[in-house]
Amino acid sequence: MKEKYVLGLDYGTNSARAVVVSAKTGAEIGTAVFEYPSGEKGIILDEKNPDLARQHPWDYLQALAAIVPAALKEAESVHGFSVDDIIGIGLDATGSTPLPVDKNGTPLALLDDFSKNPAAMAWLWKDHTGHAEAVEITALAEKMRPQYLAKCGGAYSSEWFWSKILYCKRSAPDVFYAAHTWVEHADWMSAVLTGTAHPESLKRSVCAAGHKAMYHQSWGGYPDQEFLTSLDPALGRIRETLPNRAYSIAEKAGGLTEEWALKLGLPTGIPVAMGAIDAHMGAVGSGIQPGVLVKILGTSCCDMLVAPLEQELPDIPGLCGIVPESILPGCYGLEAGQSAVGDIFNWFVNNIRPGGEGHESLTEKALKLKPGESGLLALDWHNGNRTVLVDQRLTGALLGMTLHTRPEEIYRALIEATAFGARVIMERFLEYGMTVDRIINCGGISGKNALLMQIYADIMGRPLEVSRSTQTCAVGAAMAGAVVAGAAAGGHANFADAAAAMSHADDKVYVPDENSSRQYNRLYALYKKLHDSFGVAGHQDALYPVMKELLAIRDEARQA
Amino acid sequence: MKEKYVLGLDYGTNSARAVVVSAKTGAEIGTAVFEYPSGEKGIILDEKNPDLARQHPWDYLQALAAIVPAALKEAESVHGFSVDDIIGIGLDATGSTPLPVDKNGTPLALLDDFSKNPAAMAWLWKDHTGHAEAVEITALAEKMRPQYLAKCGGAYSSEWFWSKILYCKRSAPDVFYAAHTWVEHADWMSAVLTGTAHPESLKRSVCAAGHKAMYHQSWGGYPDQEFLTSLDPALGRIRETLPNRAYSIAEKAGGLTEEWALKLGLPTGIPVAMGAIDAHMGAVGSGIQPGVLVKILGTSCCDMLVAPLEQELPDIPGLCGIVPESILPGCYGLEAGQSAVGDIFNWFVNNIRPGGEGHESLTEKALKLKPGESGLLALDWHNGNRTVLVDQRLTGALLGMTLHTRPEEIYRALIEATAFGARVIMERFLEYGMTVDRIINCGGISGKNALLMQIYADIMGRPLEVSRSTQTCAVGAAMAGAVVAGAAAGGHANFADAAAAMSHADDKVYVPDENSSRQYNRLYALYKKLHDSFGVAGHQDALYPVMKELLAIRDEARQA
Repeated sequence: MKEKYVLGLDYGTNSARAVVVSAKTGAEIGTAVFEYPSGEKGIILDEKNPDLARQHPWDYLQALAAIVPAALKEAESVHGFSVDDIIGIGLDATGSTPLPVDKNGTPLALLDDFSKNPAAMAWLWKDHTGHAEAVEITALAEKMRPQYLAKCGGAYSSEWFWSKILYCKRSAPDVFYAAHTWVEHADWMSAVLTGTAHPESLKRSVCAAGHKAMYHQSWGGYPDQEFLTSLDPALGRIRETLPNRAYSIAEKAGGLTEEWALKLGLPTGIPVAMGAIDAHMGAVGSGIQPGVLVKILGTSCCDMLVAPLEQELPDIPGLCGIVPESILPGCYGLEAGQSAVGDIFNWFVNNIRPGGEGHESLTEKALKLKPGESGLLALDWHNGNRTVLVDQRLTGALLGMTLHTRPEEIYRALIEATAFGARVIMERFLEYGMTVDRIINCGGISGKNALLMQIYADIMGRPLEVSRSTQTCAVGAAMAGAVVAGAAAGGHANFADAAAAMSHADDKVYVPDENSSRQYNRLYALYKKLHDSFGVAGHQDALYPVMKELLAIRDEARQA
Repeated sequence: MKEKYVLGLDYGTNSARAVVVSAKTGAEIGTAVFEYPSGEKGIILDEKNPDLARQHPWDYLQALAAIVPAALKEAESVHGFSVDDIIGIGLDATGSTPLPVDKNGTPLALLDDFSKNPAAMAWLWKDHTGHAEAVEITALAEKMRPQYLAKCGGAYSSEWFWSKILYCKRSAPDVFYAAHTWVEHADWMSAVLTGTAHPESLKRSVCAAGHKAMYHQSWGGYPDQEFLTSLDPALGRIRETLPNRAYSIAEKAGGLTEEWALKLGLPTGIPVAMGAIDAHMGAVGSGIQPGVLVKILGTSCCDMLVAPLEQELPDIPGLCGIVPESILPGCYGLEAGQSAVGDIFNWFVNNIRPGGEGHESLTEKALKLKPGESGLLALDWHNGNRTVLVDQRLTGALLGMTLHTRPEEIYRALIEATAFGARVIMERFLEYGMTVDRIINCGGISGKNALLMQIYADIMGRPLEVSRSTQTCAVGAAMAGAVVAGAAAGGHANFADAAAAMSHADDKVYVPDENSSRQYNRLYALYKKLHDSFGVAGHQDALYPVMKELLAIRDEARQA
């Protein structure tokens, strides 16, 4: 058979990209990126409310019309490729990023009346306006439905679906009452492409539903009416719009409509897979399987594991969720993560030192530092803590500054802090009996920042592999497109086959340095002290030794 | 009588200055400054040991030869002034800044063999190389001579005389054994000018001896042989070189030698007053008297109080000393302080944001922030904590950063942190029954930085006055010159008269804003939590509420 291709669409935080991928080899033969034009780097902010972060759905449509033709055009320069060789489409988007839509399934922000109202736009994953609502939902669930919490790590987050909807009801009732229902970004995209956006035909993906909206088959899908109306009677109406079944990425959303086929230059009717949250798709694109921890390292970080549905899994406190088939069909998907990683380094470079040296120069200087020699220790909570504390009302910290402290020392301390945070997550998995045989890293940072990768290897004490593709989310989406297309059409019968053909790790592996690891173990003990003191209610720890020991480690390191 | 003038010499951390002052009015008619040429801004550093800070005594002599003729030259442009109208000299220097000298009183660093050896130079006040020795001295004194500690706040500092000498013995024995004795910078300067540098004729000032070298009349002067030889047998020899009496600034070191009179262009034989540490002289120049707290706000901060010798004073834990006549004759001198103030802001501007906005632009933006709205809280321990913790092995901290945190917010948080530190000191004085009726501020920052002064007033909850002179240390030194010259020569009979004539407060008074003070009281409670958790051994406090409350205060402040 002639080599077939699939299209992966990846809607990120600041931009969207399309990649044309060979279903046979994983080769990426066409790529296009579109930066969202609205707000600040695609994000609508509010000076008065630092927790607010929205996106305009118009940006999503503009992106679609821009990236697909551009990626196809690039692919066409490859000998023998024709658009008719595209056999399927997959997609992912950030989440939980829900949009309020009207009874026709149209996002309110696309209606004239609401087009400039941030409450009517997409509520981006990193919008934390509903932090009080998250606390309220957690408290009610503790009392009334502890099983809901057990599957999402013990606390409901302000980043998630219901916190946002409840806050909208209270802060923007006009939008709340104009909305028929709320749809996750990825679900809206697959619905747009397949003409199924009408609430009656809309399919929702199990990934966002399970990890962010308390959906679980064991209690019949979304949270029940009694629970939701106890939160707020007005939520009952929203519950009625939610189906009792959600779909994995092995399933079709539908076929590409003629309208979009024409607009994008693709064959009409080709299958479009159900979407997923970007990080989950990144895990798929990295070749996730039981025993493989995939870390998606970008502005934030997601940690993904899968385990066969047959396995007996405990509830793991602090996780963002344990959801059947949320990553791969036939497996539980486990999600954990850090609310900010690259965002923290960007903050330091762009906000704190605008006009100063950039990442490259700071990295070069930070490379020369020995573990511990700066005497600094940071907490990586500039955007709250997702795992294991599940608390957005936490903030960053930096300790150990002297009058001699230099920027590259702070830069390195910030990297180390995110690595300590990564170790806390891995140890939580291990503590609860999960297996981690390999760690594969993907996402922007993993391919670009060797210093960070080495520090992570040293601090986690594990070899770290890196996915060869720089667009694993899009590749994962393309894999879903290949699976829904099926082997007969030139795609794949299942994700194991798709991964074997399309997903590859790089030759370069970061191996922990023994001396550095030993030193970092000492610093990690101090990090844990700070972590628990500031992050765990009721925890009382003597912090007096922390600064002392940092100085002792520093002085030793300098004299070594 | 024709108007008479006095010369005040002030040896600071990075430069020295001379001021020609009218004994009648305090008018400053001639000023000259000399930046020390050695090292980095006059300070010899060691990349491998961030605690090291030395100065070259050659810089001190060069400064003398430069600033006196230059200040006199400027004064000569004033109608009627002649150098013969100079009736006395006073001086001050940083401290504890001891120099090892040979048996002739010559600093070792001025000998060829030692001229490039940092251990043979002046050990600047902010040299903390002897931090382990400070702990050792404190521990021994606790066991053997608790009265020694009671007079210096309960802990002996690494900034002080004996910590430095003991560390020198251990780290640079060649220098230690070549040194006949050690002399404070101010004492060496008065000895140079009066030809009394030979150890047999050298007079030592009670200010440095009492506050930094455990000198107290009640136990017969310097620490006894038994105590010192228990520390290290080799210190016995040094003890033998120390006299049993030290002198206040109301006393003469001697008359100006012919050699220096010629070099400087001054009348031979005019009286030179005993020196003092710069901050103490600044208190004198600001018109200190019982009930007046003088704050010398510069790179670091000193807090000075005096109380009549008749008054019964308790030992106050955490102070740098309670020493009879160390500031004014007839009074106890009480010293407290912060190891870094302006140095912290300079660190942020110069080290962390080189090439970025300077102090002015950051101040302008920070002015627009409301107390609490940044959500940030800092600890001002970038150079350790002098009062009340007396611990150089503490470091700075910053809490509450988010991805939106801006540089001016950090800048303001650093200012606020130093103000909280200032409040801790004031409260310690009040707790122990001292009276604070007025607070007069002097030093570089007090006249230049209205934002900082207002924040200090708001946080301390007191009106803050500012000394009109920008060179109160030099003016205080000049007042000492006027007192040793005496009223008959056109000077003054005592410091009360000198202050009435020569020291003036500015018209501008910073009055606390009630709303800001209320807000800052909430933040101060959080500062104290951090302060005690990180600073007090064995202290256990639940820090979990700190980040939460910072965010609550922030959100309220932004919505107000």
